[in-house]
Amino acid sequence: MARVRKQAGAKELLYSHAPVVVLDNYEHKGKWQEVFPSVQPLEIEIGMGRGNFILEKARQNPDKNFLGIEVIEEIINEAIERMEQKGGVPDNLRFIWMNAQNVADIFAPNEVSKIYLNFSDPWPKNRHRKRRLTHSNFLKQYREILTPDGFLEQKTDSRGLFEFSLNELAAEDWRFQKIALDLYENLPEDNIATEYEEKFVKRGLPIYYLKTQNRK
Amino acid sequence: MARVRKQAGAKELLYSHAPVVVLDNYEHKGKWQEVFPSVQPLEIEIGMGRGNFILEKARQNPDKNFLGIEVIEEIINEAIERMEQKGGVPDNLRFIWMNAQNVADIFAPNEVSKIYLNFSDPWPKNRHRKRRLTHSNFLKQYREILTPDGFLEQKTDSRGLFEFSLNELAAEDWRFQKIALDLYENLPEDNIATEYEEKFVKRGLPIYYLKTQNRK
Repeated sequence: MARVRKQAGAKELLYSHAPVVVLDNYEHKGKWQEVFPSVQPLEIEIGMGRGNFILEKARQNPDKNFLGIEVIEEIINEAIERMEQKGGVPDNLRFIWMNAQNVADIFAPNEVSKIYLNFSDPWPKNRHRKRRLTHSNFLKQYREILTPDGFLEQKTDSRGLFEFSLNELAAEDWRFQKIALDLYENLPEDNIATEYEEKFVKRGLPIYYLKTQNRK
Repeated sequence: MARVRKQAGAKELLYSHAPVVVLDNYEHKGKWQEVFPSVQPLEIEIGMGRGNFILEKARQNPDKNFLGIEVIEEIINEAIERMEQKGGVPDNLRFIWMNAQNVADIFAPNEVSKIYLNFSDPWPKNRHRKRRLTHSNFLKQYREILTPDGFLEQKTDSRGLFEFSLNELAAEDWRFQKIALDLYENLPEDNIATEYEEKFVKRGLPIYYLKTQNRK
């Protein structure tokens, strides 16, 4: 994730984007379907960054609902402004401003069918390992909020984070569906590249990918 | 595995190494403990090459029995001759000359407690995928001959083979214990490097490693 300069009034601007940005996160627990026109499977991206990925997902999948979660308000504002210039935010896409540390506090058990983690901060120092979005503390929450056969997908350029993810997921006995150590060697047709991903691929670096299924 | 020049008389030389080379493989099914002085857990290496790895394993673990499997008779001969120059072949190490394609024909169910695959031929062409030692056809045999909670360990320098292994093992629902995308970043104290491995590490290339547990 790129560094972002703090902007005065960012929070007020964010609030002005409601209801595209959903406020009062905790009050929607178990009732997230109410913020969308149709009741249909809910997919979330944790750390959506500038939002290209989830916007494309939402456009290509009108039969699903999407929530983009992001901790930095400036980034959400920028994402929404960019989307508005490119045809608007679709009805099946909404945004949440929060730190994902306690994601299970805002979603009820089985409320989410899929979680995406794209190019999350690798937190390379060992003392920061608990911040990695695939630490077992997060995985336990994902297990809870996901449907019993729900999915988690991760893409990253960080070998260290990827190795960590594989081991944490294995220790929690998730069911691996697909593991790629160089995604672009056999790029799936439906891959949606993030801004970050495009830069890495241009430099010839491998993208790691995994898809894993909940088991509870 | 290095290429080996065919030698006249190699088969006769191999036979002369009996009983260190066990002959009549099929007749030992279910009775492999009889070729060792003590009844203790049996570990096998498929494709032992020049045998450094399994020799060290056997020396460090006198409380286990080891069988090195190798398809090329010249390599077994060379391995034995080298070991004889370096203190001899220990009692808890024996060799089998065979192609592993039908490994379940020579071991009974639950007869093996651990399988090692070190730097196996990656068979990079898709039409050769069935020859890879972690193809599901092999994994099904390993599952059968391994104890219910037995282990499979693999080391390789081939990213393609490693990715293939992860996906085949995941599809067969093995239980991953450890996955390393660069083993030497946090080298375990008990790692035994093969001849091949030493060359790759010197060139600064990553070694991939996995340990996975049977589930039956």
